[in-house]
Amino acid sequence: MDRMMMPKNENFRTIWLKPDDPTIVQIIDQTKLPHEFLVRDLGDYREGAHAIREMLVRGAPLIGATAAWSLYLAMIEGSNTSDPIGFVEQAAIELGGTRPTAVNLRWALDRVVGVIRLSGEDQDLVSLLRDEAQSICDEDIEICWNIGVHGCQLIEEISKRKPGEAVNVLTHCNAGALATINWGTATAPIYAATQRGINVHVWVDETRPRNQGSQLTCWELARNEVPHTLIVDNAGGHLMQQGQVDICITGTDRTTRSGDVANKIGTYLKALAAKDNDIPFFVALPSTTIDWTIRDGLTEVSIEERDAREVSHVRGMHGGEVCDVNTVAEGSAIINYAFDITPARLISGLITERGICDASEEGLAQLFPELAGRA
Amino acid sequence: MDRMMMPKNENFRTIWLKPDDPTIVQIIDQTKLPHEFLVRDLGDYREGAHAIREMLVRGAPLIGATAAWSLYLAMIEGSNTSDPIGFVEQAAIELGGTRPTAVNLRWALDRVVGVIRLSGEDQDLVSLLRDEAQSICDEDIEICWNIGVHGCQLIEEISKRKPGEAVNVLTHCNAGALATINWGTATAPIYAATQRGINVHVWVDETRPRNQGSQLTCWELARNEVPHTLIVDNAGGHLMQQGQVDICITGTDRTTRSGDVANKIGTYLKALAAKDNDIPFFVALPSTTIDWTIRDGLTEVSIEERDAREVSHVRGMHGGEVCDVNTVAEGSAIINYAFDITPARLISGLITERGICDASEEGLAQLFPELAGRA
Repeated sequence: MDRMMMPKNENFRTIWLKPDDPTIVQIIDQTKLPHEFLVRDLGDYREGAHAIREMLVRGAPLIGATAAWSLYLAMIEGSNTSDPIGFVEQAAIELGGTRPTAVNLRWALDRVVGVIRLSGEDQDLVSLLRDEAQSICDEDIEICWNIGVHGCQLIEEISKRKPGEAVNVLTHCNAGALATINWGTATAPIYAATQRGINVHVWVDETRPRNQGSQLTCWELARNEVPHTLIVDNAGGHLMQQGQVDICITGTDRTTRSGDVANKIGTYLKALAAKDNDIPFFVALPSTTIDWTIRDGLTEVSIEERDAREVSHVRGMHGGEVCDVNTVAEGSAIINYAFDITPARLISGLITERGICDASEEGLAQLFPELAGRA
Repeated sequence: MDRMMMPKNENFRTIWLKPDDPTIVQIIDQTKLPHEFLVRDLGDYREGAHAIREMLVRGAPLIGATAAWSLYLAMIEGSNTSDPIGFVEQAAIELGGTRPTAVNLRWALDRVVGVIRLSGEDQDLVSLLRDEAQSICDEDIEICWNIGVHGCQLIEEISKRKPGEAVNVLTHCNAGALATINWGTATAPIYAATQRGINVHVWVDETRPRNQGSQLTCWELARNEVPHTLIVDNAGGHLMQQGQVDICITGTDRTTRSGDVANKIGTYLKALAAKDNDIPFFVALPSTTIDWTIRDGLTEVSIEERDAREVSHVRGMHGGEVCDVNTVAEGSAIINYAFDITPARLISGLITERGICDASEEGLAQLFPELAGRA
């Protein structure tokens, strides 16, 4: 399988079991993209935790999937101990501490630990966890595909209003195939529209400090031959004022039951600009990123603070080599929040695997009554 | 004179005549900051035009001053031709094409050319233009000082409401001493407040793509011992939501007679966030940046589009050397708008050398009746 092939090739995945050694999980090291395409082995759950914490893998759905595969690796290791289940539960606690904002991490860990607790006495727990991790990945692909099917309608409607012209979609960060197992969340409607022959052009926010837009979204859009233009995060408001944006679609790391969205820092600013210019602002999400236990994003979501070095140092190519340059002189403090909250009032709608709904408690409850009722 | 001394030292200037050779103008090469402090000679007006176009000097007031000094250099050169005045007028046309958005450029050129036209037959035009360029610089220092005196009141009022705590000012780009001759526009109230012993802390937007925040504002605040923290451009909205910003103060490259502000790309997004969180958003400006000939910023201001390389390449230190790294893979288009428009409705007030006024035609006309009436 050529793993450079992107979503076009349905065989593409961002995480998989090593074909010739099922005790190893493989990932794409996303910190090296777009300059190098490097596949990394995860040999135990600690390497999985490291991959999540250091963002070799990122994006809410892929973080969840990596956590699930890490518990599978923990079960292999734990099988040699006197208390395999205790070993895996301890691993789940460690994995749960790697990233505080993405709710899929907790969701995936809870799901896998729940499966263990419900298992029969003589069940092969290693096979059980492998199958569960595999199911989480297979389901995620199905979910993202369906987000694409629903979200594509929004793009199609706009294209009918401007025949012969491209529909301009603005996106922030990478909520693409690389943030999921395949297809992506925010990108799924774009890929679906492109496959239906709709003329789409994407404005890609660079997304400082880690440049997931310029380094990941541009990379995957280029490989899927989707027309796109990179802009700095500062530019989106100007483009909206000038009528150059038809719709904004972003992903989310956690959505509250009332529709507030925690997503990559800067999302809130784009939502404000969209509102100010009467441009629809949609958020694409698998239901696994909904946190049914909270309502108010501003007071109830823990916002991760990351290393100052992500702000001061920028990675790029120089003289044929990948290197990090320090852009800041000594003597300045730096603070680095990874996410912000976009209040539901600024969101035109949520694109989920079951359809599009209002960013509100009622909207979400209509699509997911069994989940809304349980919490 | 130690030119590393910043505004504290009243001798500091960003542009000056070379002490031992009055046919040469000297500037700080701001593309090298904060990594190197390099003084460059401008030997003729073409070098002045190059310095403006390539942003060795930047910031509306300093662009104007550099244009004035460049015409002085053109007059020295033109004195050896049969038509010195024609030579200078041609130089003014060339200089006028270097940066389209900053109105001070046109203002300074018009002022100097006007002085030539009013000069007597036997006047020494070289001395006349030297004196005029010097006057523009001296007046700019006086103007910025007065902006500081007026704007400081805003900071002082906030400090009274939160005794013992720092007043948190957010600024975008560099509207500092380095953007003017000394003191700055947006920074003048900050320096004035600091000198009065008010506890001020500044959030510095990085300001992609050219990083004037991290590379220039941080540098000058550090050297003036003003507490500050660098953030990415995406972070300001989150800080405002969390009550971490008391006031925003930015500069402007052009202000329309109705109070619309053209400033560094991304300013509009911060003004939206300030409005959404009931945080005062002020713009500091010398009256020389007001364009009395236009009203509507969105349709009447030409927004400069600059080289894609400013987006793809980032300058920083690596292994003891300054180098540019390419952050973007091949296959992606890039667009790079340098400014955006912040509509007057989002601006709490304009801080000018004559006081603070509403961002409106009436507000500006009250402070500058002679200018408002003339246009």
